[in-house]
Amino acid sequence: MFDQLTKTPTVDEALLLEEVEVKLMDVLAEERPRWRTIDVDGDLVTVLEGFLSRGGKRLRPSFCMCGYVAAGGDHDAVSAAVRVAAALELLHAFALIHDDVMDGSDTRRGEPSVQTVHSASHRRAAGAGEARRFGEGIAVLAGDLAHVLAERLMLEAPRHVRARWHEMQVELVLGQTLDLVGTAYRRVDMGRAREIAVLKSGRYSVVHPLVLGALAADRSDLVAGLEAFGEPVGEAFQLRDDLMGAFGSSVETGKPVGDDLREGKPTMLLAYGRELTRGADAVLLRNVGRIDMDDSTLRQVQEVLERCGARGLVERRVDDLAAEAFDRLDGLAIDAAARESLARLAQRAIWRTS
Amino acid sequence: MFDQLTKTPTVDEALLLEEVEVKLMDVLAEERPRWRTIDVDGDLVTVLEGFLSRGGKRLRPSFCMCGYVAAGGDHDAVSAAVRVAAALELLHAFALIHDDVMDGSDTRRGEPSVQTVHSASHRRAAGAGEARRFGEGIAVLAGDLAHVLAERLMLEAPRHVRARWHEMQVELVLGQTLDLVGTAYRRVDMGRAREIAVLKSGRYSVVHPLVLGALAADRSDLVAGLEAFGEPVGEAFQLRDDLMGAFGSSVETGKPVGDDLREGKPTMLLAYGRELTRGADAVLLRNVGRIDMDDSTLRQVQEVLERCGARGLVERRVDDLAAEAFDRLDGLAIDAAARESLARLAQRAIWRTS
Repeated sequence: MFDQLTKTPTVDEALLLEEVEVKLMDVLAEERPRWRTIDVDGDLVTVLEGFLSRGGKRLRPSFCMCGYVAAGGDHDAVSAAVRVAAALELLHAFALIHDDVMDGSDTRRGEPSVQTVHSASHRRAAGAGEARRFGEGIAVLAGDLAHVLAERLMLEAPRHVRARWHEMQVELVLGQTLDLVGTAYRRVDMGRAREIAVLKSGRYSVVHPLVLGALAADRSDLVAGLEAFGEPVGEAFQLRDDLMGAFGSSVETGKPVGDDLREGKPTMLLAYGRELTRGADAVLLRNVGRIDMDDSTLRQVQEVLERCGARGLVERRVDDLAAEAFDRLDGLAIDAAARESLARLAQRAIWRTS
Repeated sequence: MFDQLTKTPTVDEALLLEEVEVKLMDVLAEERPRWRTIDVDGDLVTVLEGFLSRGGKRLRPSFCMCGYVAAGGDHDAVSAAVRVAAALELLHAFALIHDDVMDGSDTRRGEPSVQTVHSASHRRAAGAGEARRFGEGIAVLAGDLAHVLAERLMLEAPRHVRARWHEMQVELVLGQTLDLVGTAYRRVDMGRAREIAVLKSGRYSVVHPLVLGALAADRSDLVAGLEAFGEPVGEAFQLRDDLMGAFGSSVETGKPVGDDLREGKPTMLLAYGRELTRGADAVLLRNVGRIDMDDSTLRQVQEVLERCGARGLVERRVDDLAAEAFDRLDGLAIDAAARESLARLAQRAIWRTS
């Protein structure tokens, strides 16, 4: 698959992503024996296997493998790149499982969240103590295990790759903290909303995975260019998330309709809405996150976000960011096929519906 | 401090432990700037600083530095050993903070636990959402940050040291899971109680830190000997924990009296008690963890554990394990001064009162 004459990398990304899936299942299979003897609730390997196999867009492994291929990564380092991509997906499982505990989310990917499943089985078995605490305890530990297994996948990676990997994690925890505190104390100003968007989505979901892929191909020289391309893609990705969290159907997102609005998440959409409204509309938006929102209030909030132009503004901003990203992509010194894959992946991230 | 003639290491452990403290504060200071702007609840660096400075026995760093010195570690690799020791203490902060969430513990080290502090400030500030969930969210994130910072401290460590470090973490999560599930589903059989003791205390608190210290001194040949010494020390350490969790005063432990008994923790003490009792006493012990225990029931349970001989048996077992450890220590090919330090540290761990 590597053309000796032209040195054009012809590594197939779809095949690489299949290898990532195999690696994920291998890591869990290897870890399985010592967890097998515990009561079913405590078999965290099966918990993680269920979580990973219930879907997920594999966006971070995709950006990683795309970064690897774009950087001209050949077959020699494929197994290193696959390990990094699998580590990214395990780390994402850690982030989502802990996130659901912190948000008290009952569902994830259209099914009950980890803590919901295990609180229910504790209740059925009439376990000692509180069912909610038990379910959340299992979720905290399942997240912790995913985190450790992700770290273990990075064991062989060179020092500078692991340094970037840890930097990404600190930013992720910072983003989550800003989100939690912002929701609790209603900090929906634009600056803070943008900072969360950059940390939680821009850098964590797009920029770092792309760069880690390029570093796995030993191309530090491409880092700046990939960051310049990844940043607007990441911001657009987050804005799409804001739109889906406010207007998306639960069939598509696997989450209840208007979840972000009900929780009063400090999104850029809501921050724009607050800047663009006056009078009764402004009062309504100011109350987002302060009041328990029934379906009719939710619909009113959605209408205000439409009417005041916040939704349209965010949609235009997504388009502008996409255009900026494609411009920057043109400037990257990479192979035409790799450019094509990066463009396709960015489109998939930006215009996704779930 | 290194005697060139005799090659006797004269590295001073007390000084090394001071260096560990400095390293811990340095790691946090370096991380501080980007957390400074968040509302006070979200400044996780200050949360961790408070947690680390409120005491703690520094047992894992002590075993690590003792292992390092015993292995003849000299000044060349001191900074590597200090980093590992500091990583162990940060990892322990992660484990304790998440443990308090899972156990719903209100206190830690005689003061309110992380989630208690932050639930209270959420309540005072009339934050959005549930105060309990917010406090626990902050604690989950503070634990996650401690975990990432610990990993980052291991960045420079060689591959085989990091492999051991990750193995320790998987065992820790497994031990915590067995504990959580055992408490909920009342699995207080001796085999399970012993497995938890080995994983959560024996290996995590004693064996792995000792071995990591020796590996930092590049002495893989000492691993088997240090493991043989560390295992009985670790088991005795856990049995002392069982005794303190059942009979210790809250002044000494910083936890409510009889905490483990109230929660029905699957300890070896309780498992012995169940094996040694018949009739009404057996019924009472069987109900530990099934009923809300008032102070008078707690006293009855303590009396039964005394009367049936479980307490005495555990105390004798501690003595036997200590004797076994000291025998094995005599067999180790290490310097007399290092042997003396290991013996002193083991005694401190086994006969501690807090």
